[in-house]
Amino acid sequence: MNSLESAVTYFETAFREEISKIQSTAPPKLYEPVGYSLIIGGKRLRPALMLHAASLFTESVEHVLPAAMAIEIFHNFTLLHDDIMDHADLRRGLPTVHKKYSENTAILSGDAMSIIAFKYLARGSHDRLPELLDLFSTTALQVCEGQQLDMDYETMENVSIENYIEMIRLKTAVLIGCSLKIGALLANANPTQANLLYEYGINVGLAFQLQDDWLDVYGNPDLFGKSKGGDICANKKTYLLLKAIDACDPATLLELNLWLARTDFDPIQKIAVVTAIYEKTGVSEQTQKLMNHYHSKALEALEQMTIPPASRETLKAFAGEAIVRNK
Amino acid sequence: MNSLESAVTYFETAFREEISKIQSTAPPKLYEPVGYSLIIGGKRLRPALMLHAASLFTESVEHVLPAAMAIEIFHNFTLLHDDIMDHADLRRGLPTVHKKYSENTAILSGDAMSIIAFKYLARGSHDRLPELLDLFSTTALQVCEGQQLDMDYETMENVSIENYIEMIRLKTAVLIGCSLKIGALLANANPTQANLLYEYGINVGLAFQLQDDWLDVYGNPDLFGKSKGGDICANKKTYLLLKAIDACDPATLLELNLWLARTDFDPIQKIAVVTAIYEKTGVSEQTQKLMNHYHSKALEALEQMTIPPASRETLKAFAGEAIVRNK
Repeated sequence: MNSLESAVTYFETAFREEISKIQSTAPPKLYEPVGYSLIIGGKRLRPALMLHAASLFTESVEHVLPAAMAIEIFHNFTLLHDDIMDHADLRRGLPTVHKKYSENTAILSGDAMSIIAFKYLARGSHDRLPELLDLFSTTALQVCEGQQLDMDYETMENVSIENYIEMIRLKTAVLIGCSLKIGALLANANPTQANLLYEYGINVGLAFQLQDDWLDVYGNPDLFGKSKGGDICANKKTYLLLKAIDACDPATLLELNLWLARTDFDPIQKIAVVTAIYEKTGVSEQTQKLMNHYHSKALEALEQMTIPPASRETLKAFAGEAIVRNK
Repeated sequence: MNSLESAVTYFETAFREEISKIQSTAPPKLYEPVGYSLIIGGKRLRPALMLHAASLFTESVEHVLPAAMAIEIFHNFTLLHDDIMDHADLRRGLPTVHKKYSENTAILSGDAMSIIAFKYLARGSHDRLPELLDLFSTTALQVCEGQQLDMDYETMENVSIENYIEMIRLKTAVLIGCSLKIGALLANANPTQANLLYEYGINVGLAFQLQDDWLDVYGNPDLFGKSKGGDICANKKTYLLLKAIDACDPATLLELNLWLARTDFDPIQKIAVVTAIYEKTGVSEQTQKLMNHYHSKALEALEQMTIPPASRETLKAFAGEAIVRNK
């Protein structure tokens, strides 16, 4: 399993079969929405990373599949409930569960998914289950904490850069680290190797989130799949915005705050003004600098690992996708 | 630990300390509502049963505390999310979490509680963790299924008695059975004994739910803590209502359906009419008969167990509370 693509394909085949089983379980009003949410679910990045991590230390990774499914089901559960809380109508271009069914259905089906994740975790791996369950539940709780902080920051003034980094670490990075570490543990890797993979995952996760913030402003919307400037229009406290608030002179700050306070505005104009402020304050370069910093830390962790060169290259290449090469 | 009361006291002391810790964890907007929900939480019946079950087979039950906390936290999580779904304003006379805080807070804090339950389960018990995690997650999922069926039945015509019993088995009885069985497993009881306790728990749980239905019509509201006839006013498909629909003649059925269809009615009058129909169709006696049936089955399971006589009496007495002696 030398490429993440092959891990995704391997996972997806097995997962589709499980989704079919889940979808045909009674009562249908509980399990059909679970199946819907899992089918529309995205790139299978986390289970692919888990399977790849296991393949660094063992030939056969079939026994890792239940835990890989656990992490994917848990991830999709968080998206489902986040969508209720954010009043989001669409997820990957399709109606969100609470829009397609109802809010009560979305709450309860999400609850079921969270529990199903633990059920799958119990299925695979008996020797190291205490350690796995502790890691998985601690991580799952951290994801909730990250979501809470994200909601808190929407209305909080003076969100610091440290606050923000801690929030994205909890909301995004720890689940990537956890996926990799569980893969390693299930392949009986030693703790040092497992922890280095976790470190790699945290840093890649942070870089990816910063990239996400950056792409909202500078990305090609055709490739990125989101409309450009969405974060700017929504006053989302991204790294770029927080950094700009920190860095700009009083007159520019006044202008920026004016645009943040406006409820009635031309989106194209707002995006243009805020982007110009970003240019003036150099936040694009600063974001890239921090992305590169986390990218380097991810590679440092990789360098310390004793793994086959081809597998290391796969993880290096994946980390490389988290930084910005153009602009 | 020969009485459930002593088990409750023992549990409550340890649990209060844990709640304090949880409540002071950051971010406060996530964990304060968790603490609130756990403090207002009820009679601690499930953890007390778990501790008592363990005490049947071992002297020291301290190591059972984390799993007992897990079951209590999980139970309170289900109440918290059920209250959102039912739009309930009060829980045990106090504002529900979504009323006191917000709906988003209630969703996310509930999610956290469900995960915290698994975290506590991981803490206590390493030898039999795979078995415990499988039992706990299977049971937790059944509780969700029961809640879904309960919601389905609100709008479904022709809910059969079998449907109803299966719904209350899932929504209420399995968690009681699971509490007892986990207690037994953590005390290294053999599987036969653990399964007999589970059987006992299921049957006691069914009897209690039927009693709950019965008390709504015939109970003393001062003792019962709910206003009399609440289920009747809400058209709740209780065992009594379903049985009455089954048993009554066409003219009475017409009258009953008329009252079920009315949106504007005098509660006292509706309660009087429906109660009279219950009298005519003998559903009070039939409910008591079924309660007694489950009570007997619970005692049968107890009789087959090899446990100290005093402990058996405690469980017998508890089962006795699930039936109706007067009327």
